[in-house]
Amino acid sequence: MRASRFFISTLKDAPSDAEIVSHQLMMRAGMIKRLGSGIYTYMPTGLRVIRKVEAIIREEMNKAGAIELLMPLVQPAELWQETGRWEKMGPELMRVKDRHGREFAIQPTSEEVITDVVRGEIKSYRQLPLNFYHIQTKFRDERRPRFGLMRGREFTMKDAYSFDRDLAGMQASYKIMYDAYTAIFTRFGLKFRAVAADNGAIGGTGSHEFHVIASTGEDAIVYCPTSDYAANMEAAEALPLAAERAAPKQDMAKVATPNTTKCETVAELLKIDLKQTVKSIALTVERELEGKVTKENWLLLLRGDHELNEIKVGKVPGLSNHRFATEDEIREAYGTVPGYLGPVGTQQPVRVVADRTVANMTDFVCGANEEGYHLTGANWGRDALEPEVADLRNVVEGDASPDGKGVLAIERGIEVGHVFQLGTAYSEAMKATFLDENGKPAPLQMGCYGIGVTRILGAAIEQNFDDKGIIWPTSIAPFELVLCPMGYDRSEMVKEETDKLYASLQEAGVDVIIDDRGLRPGAMFADWELIGVPHRVVIGERGLKEGNLEYQGRRDTEATAVPASGMVDFIKGKLAQ
Amino acid sequence: MRASRFFISTLKDAPSDAEIVSHQLMMRAGMIKRLGSGIYTYMPTGLRVIRKVEAIIREEMNKAGAIELLMPLVQPAELWQETGRWEKMGPELMRVKDRHGREFAIQPTSEEVITDVVRGEIKSYRQLPLNFYHIQTKFRDERRPRFGLMRGREFTMKDAYSFDRDLAGMQASYKIMYDAYTAIFTRFGLKFRAVAADNGAIGGTGSHEFHVIASTGEDAIVYCPTSDYAANMEAAEALPLAAERAAPKQDMAKVATPNTTKCETVAELLKIDLKQTVKSIALTVERELEGKVTKENWLLLLRGDHELNEIKVGKVPGLSNHRFATEDEIREAYGTVPGYLGPVGTQQPVRVVADRTVANMTDFVCGANEEGYHLTGANWGRDALEPEVADLRNVVEGDASPDGKGVLAIERGIEVGHVFQLGTAYSEAMKATFLDENGKPAPLQMGCYGIGVTRILGAAIEQNFDDKGIIWPTSIAPFELVLCPMGYDRSEMVKEETDKLYASLQEAGVDVIIDDRGLRPGAMFADWELIGVPHRVVIGERGLKEGNLEYQGRRDTEATAVPASGMVDFIKGKLAQ
Repeated sequence: MRASRFFISTLKDAPSDAEIVSHQLMMRAGMIKRLGSGIYTYMPTGLRVIRKVEAIIREEMNKAGAIELLMPLVQPAELWQETGRWEKMGPELMRVKDRHGREFAIQPTSEEVITDVVRGEIKSYRQLPLNFYHIQTKFRDERRPRFGLMRGREFTMKDAYSFDRDLAGMQASYKIMYDAYTAIFTRFGLKFRAVAADNGAIGGTGSHEFHVIASTGEDAIVYCPTSDYAANMEAAEALPLAAERAAPKQDMAKVATPNTTKCETVAELLKIDLKQTVKSIALTVERELEGKVTKENWLLLLRGDHELNEIKVGKVPGLSNHRFATEDEIREAYGTVPGYLGPVGTQQPVRVVADRTVANMTDFVCGANEEGYHLTGANWGRDALEPEVADLRNVVEGDASPDGKGVLAIERGIEVGHVFQLGTAYSEAMKATFLDENGKPAPLQMGCYGIGVTRILGAAIEQNFDDKGIIWPTSIAPFELVLCPMGYDRSEMVKEETDKLYASLQEAGVDVIIDDRGLRPGAMFADWELIGVPHRVVIGERGLKEGNLEYQGRRDTEATAVPASGMVDFIKGKLAQ
Repeated sequence: MRASRFFISTLKDAPSDAEIVSHQLMMRAGMIKRLGSGIYTYMPTGLRVIRKVEAIIREEMNKAGAIELLMPLVQPAELWQETGRWEKMGPELMRVKDRHGREFAIQPTSEEVITDVVRGEIKSYRQLPLNFYHIQTKFRDERRPRFGLMRGREFTMKDAYSFDRDLAGMQASYKIMYDAYTAIFTRFGLKFRAVAADNGAIGGTGSHEFHVIASTGEDAIVYCPTSDYAANMEAAEALPLAAERAAPKQDMAKVATPNTTKCETVAELLKIDLKQTVKSIALTVERELEGKVTKENWLLLLRGDHELNEIKVGKVPGLSNHRFATEDEIREAYGTVPGYLGPVGTQQPVRVVADRTVANMTDFVCGANEEGYHLTGANWGRDALEPEVADLRNVVEGDASPDGKGVLAIERGIEVGHVFQLGTAYSEAMKATFLDENGKPAPLQMGCYGIGVTRILGAAIEQNFDDKGIIWPTSIAPFELVLCPMGYDRSEMVKEETDKLYASLQEAGVDVIIDDRGLRPGAMFADWELIGVPHRVVIGERGLKEGNLEYQGRRDTEATAVPASGMVDFIKGKLAQ
C-alpha cells in the first residue's frame, strides 16, 4: 500500500466527548468517525484492524469445526416473542415496523434465528453436534452509549451457537469453543484472562468471560496467582475468613451511638477496628399466594468493611426476587430506623442470613434495633440465634482462593468474549427437538459463544498505548510495517532503495505501507506512532551511504542501524517473534 | 473441507413460493433459508459464494485505487433530510426510532453518509480525487419482495463514491470504475453487457448499467451486434424508420369504425397493415401560475405497432410532470371519447407531438376526433399541421442502431451493477465543498457505483443452470472441486487415495471438498450437481486398480478417466482455463 493512495487523516486533539484513551486515540488516528450517538463509520485504517481481527476469529472458528453462515439483521418479532425476549429485552432491543406494519427487531444477538434455522434442519441425533457462527453487525439501543467502540450501539460481533444431543456433548462443544477462544486471544497478542462467570438470568450450567487485562477496564476480575482459579467479581466465591469461630471474650453491652448509622463512623466513635463491626441490610420479598401479596423481611449481615454482592444474594434460596426494604418497611418490621438494625433480639418472621465471614465472628458490634444505640461484644448462639449462612460478599485482595491454592488478587479487565452453556432454555421455548437414539424427541442442548469484534479494538488500545499513540500487536495492526523514506520525491537513491525494499517485502508477504506523502520526518513519524504501526524502517541518504537503513519498533526508544541488504530477513525475524 | 464437517442440506422440491429458477435452485441447494418476506439467512454454501463475489470485487476495487471503509447501517434522519430523500424515498426507506424518539434510516444506500464524511475531511483540491467504497448490508422495504435474492429487502451491496475537483476529473473517475466493473464481471465468468442508461430523477451527466444476460431477465437490453452500441430500453434511441416522408398518394377519407377504439382492431376492420395506423395518447400537464392551476392538453402520436417509452416522454420539454388525461379531460379538450382522437383538426391549445416515425408517415390512419369514425389517407402539412417531433417510443428488434453501424437486437438482462455520474447534486445539497486552486470554495463532483452482491448469485444461476441444478462459474463456486470417493468408509484403498489427493490439491491451493458422508453414489452426485460445483473427481476401486480416477466437469455429459498420478496437474489445468 502507498500512503498517497490510502486515506490517512490524523488529528492533534481528540474531540471533547472522547472520555477514555482508546476512544481518544482512535478518533485522533482517524480510525473511526462519529455518525451519531454510539454509531461510527469505520474509516480505512480502522477497518483494516477489524478485518484482521475477523480473519483470526474466522480461521480459529473454522479450525474448531464451527460452520459460518450469515443471519439477517432485520428479524421478525414473532421469533423473539416465542422466547419472550421481545418483552424481556426492553428498550435496548431496536424495533422497527415495515410498510405493512409488521414488527421486526434489529438483531442484538441471534439465538432465536439460529434456533429457528436449526429446528427446520435437524431431524436426528445423527446430524449432531453442529456449531454455526456468523460475524455480523449488531445493534443495541444502549441508554448511554459512550467510550467509542467500547460501548457503542451499532457494533460487530461474532456469535456462535452449538447444538448437541446431550449435556456431555454440549459440554464438549463448550470446551472446544473455550479452547478456540484461548487460541484467538493468544493470536491477537493481547494479555487476557478467562474467568468463571455467573450465568445470569438465562440460566444454564456454566459460563466463562474472556477479559483483556487493562487498568482502565470496567470489570474487576479475580484470580489466584499461584493456581488456575479466575472468576469475575460476581462469581468469585468468598470463603469464611476464619476457619472456625473463636470463643466469646466479651459480655454484650449496649452503647449510645447517636447519629451514627454507618459502620465506619461507629468504629471511629467506639475506637474499634472496622472489621469488628457487622452491617445489617434489610430486604423485602413480595410473594403472591392465592391472589394475596405477602411481604417477607430478610436481614443480611456483612462485616463492616465488606461489600454486598447482589448476584450472590439473588442465589440464596428465597431471595431471587428481592429488593431493598423501604424506610417504612424497616420501621414496621424492626421497630427502629435504618442504621441501627442488628441480629440480636430480632424476632421471626425476620429471616437473618449472615455472610460466611460474619457467621464466624466473635464479640462483634452491631445495631441494637433501637435508634441511637449499638451493641458491643455480641456473639452468636449466646446473644443472637445462630443465623442462616451464605456467601453474600465480594471477595477482596488477599482472600483465600476457593481452590485452596493461594490467595486472591484482583485486576481490571475489559470483557471481549463470553462462552455460555445455554442448555435447553431456547430449544424448549422454540420446540427445537431432534429424535434421539430411541426415536424419541428431545430438546437440543445449546451453547452460545460471543466475541465483540469492534470492542477488541478498544480493548487492545486500552492495554497498549503510550503518550505518542496506539501500539498495535502485530497480528491486528492496520499495517505490520511502515517505510518512511527521507525525501522520496527528492532523492533518487532513497526512492530506488525504498521501492526495491517495498517490492521485496511484499513478495515476502509483509503487510507494508510506504509513506510517500512527502511530509517532513517529524510529522510523518508522529502520524505512524499515533496510528500505532508496530514496525518502522527509515530510508535516508546518510544511512544508505554506509549501506544501512534504520529500524525502530514502536516500543523501542532508539532506532537500530540494519544493513539494507539484510532488512527483509531482519523484518521477517521481527514478525516471527 | 470435509462434507462431514460442513453443512449440506438439499431438497428434492423447491417451496411453492419460489417462482423463478434461481430462487428454486438456491432453496433446493440449501444456499439460503427464508426468515421473512424478502429476508434470508445465507446458509454455509451460499455464504461461500457471497464471500468469493466480495473478494473479487474488493480486489478489483482496490486495484482501481478505491479505498474501503464501512459506513453504519443505522443512519440519522437529519442527513437524509439535508438532501430531501427522507421524504422522497417514501415507504421503501425503512425508518426506525431509538429509545429517545430520534429517527434513523436503515441504509438502502449511502450517498448522504459518505458526503458527510467527506465534507468533514476534504479541505483542498490537493486531497482529490478520492474514491471510497464499502460492502455492506442494505435494506429496502420493497412493496412486493420476490424472486429470492433477486428482489429481496435485506441484501448486500458494494457501493462506491468518487469525489473530484471538476467534471473532467469526475469523468476520469467514472471511466476507472467502468473499467473496474468490466474486470469484475469478467472475473465472475458471467456473460454480461454494459449498457447506457437513463439518468433518472437524480440528474447527472451519464450512467451505465451492467446486466448479466439471461433469458429470464426482468430488463430488455438493446445492442447492436455489429458495433459497440448498447443501452437499456429506457435509454435506447429510436431513429425515424423512414429517412424522409414520401409524397401522399391517397385523399383523406372519413370511415365509420363503430366500437373500434384500438389500432389493432381498426387495422383489422379496414384490412390494412397495423404499421399504417397512428395511435393518439392524450396527456395532461398541470401548472401552477400565481396560485392558479392551469391544465395543458398534449396529444402524443405513435405508430400503431409501437410502444410508448415514458422515460422519453418525461424528457420532452414541458412534459417532465405529465400524466395520462382522464376521460372527462379528453371529452372537454377534444369533444370526443378516447379511441377516436387524432391530429387532424385538432386546435390549439392542444399541443401535438409525433414520434419520429409518425412524423415521416404518409397516408396514415388516425382517429377523426368524432366517436365512431377514423380518417384514412391522412397526411402531414396537407390535412394536419406539421407536428412537433420527438423520440417517444421503445426501439424494437431490427431498428437502425443510433450509431449508424447496423441494426438493433434485444436480449433480456438482469441489472447487477450501475455506475453513475452524480455531479454536484449531493455536494451542493449538503454543502460539501473544497478550496480549488484559486482558494475558492467549489462543490465536489461526485460519482456513485453500485454492485448488487447477493443479486449476483441469482443472476449467475439464471444464466447457468440445467435440469440437474446450478452450474457455477469456477471463480464464484462454493467449492471449485468435489472429491467423491466410492466407499470412503469401506475401502482402505479408496480412502488412502482420496486423502492423498485431497492433501495435494489443498497444497496446490485448490478449493476442494471431500464428500465423506457415506452416501450412495446417486445421492452424492445429485447433491453436487444441484449445488453446482463445477469440477468433480470420482475415486473408486475399479478405476484405481488401473491407476485411474474419473473426472467430470459440471457441463460434461461423460466422465473422463485420468491417471491418478496426474490428477493434480489435470485439475490445475482445468482451473486455469
